[in-house]
Amino acid sequence: MPRSGARARARQLGIRIGRFQTGRYNAITDVAGVRVGHATVIHGEGPLRVGHGPARTGATAILPNAGDIFHNRVVGSGFILNGAGEVSGLTQLVEWGLIETPIILTNTLSVGACSEAVVKYMVDRYPSIGNEHDVLIPVVGECDDSWLNDAAGRHVRTAHVYKAIETAAGGFVQEGAVGGGTGMICCDFKAGIGTSSRRLPKEDGGFVIGVLVMSNFGVMENLRVDGVPVGAILEPEYREHIRRVDNYGSIIAVVATNAPLQQHQIGRLCKRVALGIGRTGSYAAHGSGEIIVGFSTANTVPRESDKMVYRMKILLDSRMNPLYEAAIDATEEAILNALCMAETMEGHSGHVAPALPLDRLRELLVRFGRAPQ
Amino acid sequence: MPRSGARARARQLGIRIGRFQTGRYNAITDVAGVRVGHATVIHGEGPLRVGHGPARTGATAILPNAGDIFHNRVVGSGFILNGAGEVSGLTQLVEWGLIETPIILTNTLSVGACSEAVVKYMVDRYPSIGNEHDVLIPVVGECDDSWLNDAAGRHVRTAHVYKAIETAAGGFVQEGAVGGGTGMICCDFKAGIGTSSRRLPKEDGGFVIGVLVMSNFGVMENLRVDGVPVGAILEPEYREHIRRVDNYGSIIAVVATNAPLQQHQIGRLCKRVALGIGRTGSYAAHGSGEIIVGFSTANTVPRESDKMVYRMKILLDSRMNPLYEAAIDATEEAILNALCMAETMEGHSGHVAPALPLDRLRELLVRFGRAPQ
Amino acid sequence: MPRSGARARARQLGIRIGRFQTGRYNAITDVAGVRVGHATVIHGEGPLRVGHGPARTGATAILPNAGDIFHNRVVGSGFILNGAGEVSGLTQLVEWGLIETPIILTNTLSVGACSEAVVKYMVDRYPSIGNEHDVLIPVVGECDDSWLNDAAGRHVRTAHVYKAIETAAGGFVQEGAVGGGTGMICCDFKAGIGTSSRRLPKEDGGFVIGVLVMSNFGVMENLRVDGVPVGAILEPEYREHIRRVDNYGSIIAVVATNAPLQQHQIGRLCKRVALGIGRTGSYAAHGSGEIIVGFSTANTVPRESDKMVYRMKILLDSRMNPLYEAAIDATEEAILNALCMAETMEGHSGHVAPALPLDRLRELLVRFGRAPQ
Amino acid sequence: MPRSGARARARQLGIRIGRFQTGRYNAITDVAGVRVGHATVIHGEGPLRVGHGPARTGATAILPNAGDIFHNRVVGSGFILNGAGEVSGLTQLVEWGLIETPIILTNTLSVGACSEAVVKYMVDRYPSIGNEHDVLIPVVGECDDSWLNDAAGRHVRTAHVYKAIETAAGGFVQEGAVGGGTGMICCDFKAGIGTSSRRLPKEDGGFVIGVLVMSNFGVMENLRVDGVPVGAILEPEYREHIRRVDNYGSIIAVVATNAPLQQHQIGRLCKRVALGIGRTGSYAAHGSGEIIVGFSTANTVPRESDKMVYRMKILLDSRMNPLYEAAIDATEEAILNALCMAETMEGHSGHVAPALPLDRLRELLVRFGRAPQ
Repeated sequence: MPRSGARARARQLGIRIGRFQTGRYNAITDVAGVRVGHATVIHGEGPLRVGHGPARTGATAILPNAGDIFHNRVVGSGFILNGAGEVSGLTQLVEWGLIETPIILTNTLSVGACSEAVVKYMVDRYPSIGNEHDVLIPVVGECDDSWLNDAAGRHVRTAHVYKAIETAAGGFVQEGAVGGGTGMICCDFKAGIGTSSRRLPKEDGGFVIGVLVMSNFGVMENLRVDGVPVGAILEPEYREHIRRVDNYGSIIAVVATNAPLQQHQIGRLCKRVALGIGRTGSYAAHGSGEIIVGFSTANTVPRESDKMVYRMKILLDSRMNPLYEAAIDATEEAILNALCMAETMEGHSGHVAPALPLDRLRELLVRFGRAPQ
Repeated sequence: MPRSGARARARQLGIRIGRFQTGRYNAITDVAGVRVGHATVIHGEGPLRVGHGPARTGATAILPNAGDIFHNRVVGSGFILNGAGEVSGLTQLVEWGLIETPIILTNTLSVGACSEAVVKYMVDRYPSIGNEHDVLIPVVGECDDSWLNDAAGRHVRTAHVYKAIETAAGGFVQEGAVGGGTGMICCDFKAGIGTSSRRLPKEDGGFVIGVLVMSNFGVMENLRVDGVPVGAILEPEYREHIRRVDNYGSIIAVVATNAPLQQHQIGRLCKRVALGIGRTGSYAAHGSGEIIVGFSTANTVPRESDKMVYRMKILLDSRMNPLYEAAIDATEEAILNALCMAETMEGHSGHVAPALPLDRLRELLVRFGRAPQ
Repeated sequence: MPRSGARARARQLGIRIGRFQTGRYNAITDVAGVRVGHATVIHGEGPLRVGHGPARTGATAILPNAGDIFHNRVVGSGFILNGAGEVSGLTQLVEWGLIETPIILTNTLSVGACSEAVVKYMVDRYPSIGNEHDVLIPVVGECDDSWLNDAAGRHVRTAHVYKAIETAAGGFVQEGAVGGGTGMICCDFKAGIGTSSRRLPKEDGGFVIGVLVMSNFGVMENLRVDGVPVGAILEPEYREHIRRVDNYGSIIAVVATNAPLQQHQIGRLCKRVALGIGRTGSYAAHGSGEIIVGFSTANTVPRESDKMVYRMKILLDSRMNPLYEAAIDATEEAILNALCMAETMEGHSGHVAPALPLDRLRELLVRFGRAPQ
Repeated sequence: MPRSGARARARQLGIRIGRFQTGRYNAITDVAGVRVGHATVIHGEGPLRVGHGPARTGATAILPNAGDIFHNRVVGSGFILNGAGEVSGLTQLVEWGLIETPIILTNTLSVGACSEAVVKYMVDRYPSIGNEHDVLIPVVGECDDSWLNDAAGRHVRTAHVYKAIETAAGGFVQEGAVGGGTGMICCDFKAGIGTSSRRLPKEDGGFVIGVLVMSNFGVMENLRVDGVPVGAILEPEYREHIRRVDNYGSIIAVVATNAPLQQHQIGRLCKRVALGIGRTGSYAAHGSGEIIVGFSTANTVPRESDKMVYRMKILLDSRMNPLYEAAIDATEEAILNALCMAETMEGHSGHVAPALPLDRLRELLVRFGRAPQ
């Protein structure tokens, strides 16, 4: 197994996906108001002892706006490319076209704990919930990190969710093996959280679109980087180190934009994120839950209002194409960032997920004409 | 407010919904192998003190087969009439067309706790989960019981879920204010769990279909019993006692059958359950999550198999009509049973949900020609 | 078989469905701008000779606004209760949330001819189609009238579609065996086109909602009128005259409102129309296509615009409940109107569809307390 | 504009998409029993005179099995990547999970004419339709060829549909500007019909999967061939010749397999075809209808049967991954075949769609390491 070396974001390696500029941080936080926080849980080594560890897991929180998401909800929707996974709360999110809680990403067996933690957090903050106000349904997405992590031990607890929410901030977003992405693996390389953004040209409205993924899907052989079959080329070098599993999988992607979109337009946007996942080599394996959640920050929908009818800004459908293209590009780059930023990790029972070797990657990109010498 | 008197099932009042016979117990358990268990949480009185009570809640477990649901999965699907609610795990259930865990019904803010409890239960029982075997995603449905219950206090804990699963049994099913239905209200009357079944005639295959609901939807004015506008007639008598809420709602229905159905056929069957909900007067209010989960016990799909191709028994589509009709009838009767069996309950802060007055109900059914004198 | 006597609308018989007032015409045309036109094709008698007749069919056109629907599109969506039918163009209507052509209702085997006729009509009127402007996809719904009509003979031709469109008008709408409804049968009684409307109280926004159905579903035994099991009671009297078919079916419903709804809100509204269909006794039989198309006239979406972002009026979700209730009520009454207004018809091969006997109906409604003496 | 030169299939240029072998003909007809026929309509030159031409259009028929599709239906389903298009009949196909007519591909404004022609064809062949037997709903998909073709003139007539059906055959499939694909353009190059297939290794069941596309989507800039950004590189050379349109669009893909799949499994398979479309550079533009229809020939479902319950062979879900991968690969190659086989075409008004220059393509594939020198 080659050494993995120091980490860098895809763009630092000379990779350029698509024709649009990135936002300032090349992150979902380039959409004004969006904040991201992580709680990373790493402890223990050696064989798996359920309940003891080793733990390689965590939680990531995405806050759709900087203010009071409970009272000033944003418009959202979603798309299920492959439903072998879970985003709890997705049903209501799609039905109402509204997001009213933080979005949490974690491991599969911790969805329940995180959901309960969000309830506790929201009730602490809004004591009227379950009383004057309706109850709420948290949005919690998951991937399976059990190859590295003592997933059955359920190491993500209430305090981690609080930490992820409370430390959430705009600007720079930590990537790789952090938060919910701590124990995740993508195309047999260590991955986890990745993010990217695009800023449309002024003639296309100047909108910003950002994608954050918790990336955990695929087999090495299928990994493509900007069209280059990197996985198929590297696979022989890693063959003896690759985990043997039947079901791999899942990616949860969150797409945010300040373009003024309605529920059904966001649903359409989420479908393009699925195409971006496909670009990197995913075939959405049977056991891989590939679920996309989207929201637009352009309109807020008040929980309480004296008015029966309000006005929403809406982007003309016929102007959505640049957003679609940007969503695919940002998704592809977010997945690459997760791969490029994650370091080799040893989990339980001697299981090792190797980092994507950036020197080899760069060499291949140059050889295939996708990055300058 | 009239007195409610002793409780009885709808059928004991002379109500006959539809043309088919019921199964032996007139319950979802008439589908061979299906088991139901409840854990009821009732303690405290007086004003609401979040975390202390009063508690009027619980959990209900439906086990799709008598054996090992993890290894011998049954075919399932679902339908969302109104998505202002949550059945966690529904995404995978519909994608794969398989149920592989118990189904739990509880209150909205306890979905997380119940989900985690099922994970713990399954990991205890199948230590290979998250190791040799995949992780799993529990199926947990909810309604909001916060008008009577200290929902924000999250009183349903792991032990309750274990109890509901471990006491689950075939045969007679307790109805009304029990298990997940403990704090539920339907059309402003106390309701909760109800169940009913139908056995098709031999020429229609002799199949059994059973429905269990956790019923919590609607306003009194709209309640219809076998077509009789019972709610509109009784509403003036109850007007001053009716809760004042903006959002009421939700019903989770589980439909089971031994007819050999594929995933998409079960999804179609679940749509007819929605029509049954409509028959009782639901207009699927904006804030009312009306979600249906269905399964067929006729085929089991092994988790592990040496064979790549297996054979499934399948009912010809053109023979599904009697099942559709029976599903609607059983749903209507299950909702009525929840209403007829629940007693008046006082919850927190002096909130009272009155029982449906059975003497008045019977009188109206006779007057409108729907029950014999 | 009892005599059917003179026809009347349900309301004239004393039937009152729900608590809201109707609009002026109690028709979909009460939504300002909506226009309806029919072309009825009736000729021939005796045995079926494919291509010769007898013909008992036609086309009905619903124009969503009084102006130029091609350039000033309205917001729309739909819902499929049972997909054993066809509304061509529904895919794009739901994807874009826009209606840009008249809606045509006809018999199953004439969908193609009507679709082509609409193309011709629109190209005649807008010669830029397929040139400067995009091509278009007509919205054409169908039910099967082959028990009375020489459906395989495809008697609905271009001129009929033109006539339905060009004679479309506001105000009074002809019901029963007219237009697309000419050969339709509902619950074994002659039916066809029916319509009804509701006007919400001022405090609910004063919106108007109208429903028009082409009703062709069900078996007599299941027919319910305002909750009264009219079909089950009448069935023995008609038993020997009831057609023997395995597959019956279909109903296409169109729901219009001036309430300002987005695409996903209209989709939700259409689901409530399905509940209204269920109220009358439909169990959405396997072979019965039950499809709902909806639109809101409150906003028009221009085909061409210099602006990238526009503003739309939108009804707060939490205020949708009265619309839901009204949609169910108007659907039920529209179906009844189709039944009450259609006269007995003899089709090919001696097939007769009897009219619903209004004297018997009225007698039953009185007996069951649903109409005043 | 470079010269286009002689045509060849992608594979003849050294392109190898994915790791699986193709079937014998590298066509959808490699799935035993599947037959394809074309009717090509080309006449006229010069300016557009609606109704006169120039005509550059046609119809393609796919027959799912070699026998009697009306009586021996196959299992099918579909997926809508972007619904700005039409496959009439898709609603019923997905609801029932059955295909019972030929599948026709044509231009947008000819869907009605083709639908009526299929009705006529089927009624001719099965006179019991609309009499003893149910009516039927043809499956007709479309793309917009109006940049080259007098689409508004509706030049595809009944005889063309008959010809496409009656000449349908197994074995070699004509590609490029033929049948429904005659006037189609993909990524600004002339395209049309393309097909490809894969045969899984024996350990994956040895199943065959074939894809046929009518390809008409995208802009040159986005075209990718096996990951190589061919379109972005060629675009400057073609810039002055590229059509100026706002809406381009659509691709209809048909995927067939002899693997024994249920309805919901075929729906899942169709989603992977969407990922294959994305691989070639589609971002599923707002106005581009990207719709996939799928079927499995492994089981036939009889129209009439004495048995209520039958047995179906079913592939274990966990064995679907190779099919998913193969579906993506075959889709990508089918699209490339449409591009590689179509010659430069001049349509109405001097509009020219240039052929993809194969010499330049080959040079780029070699330069980017995707084809041997």
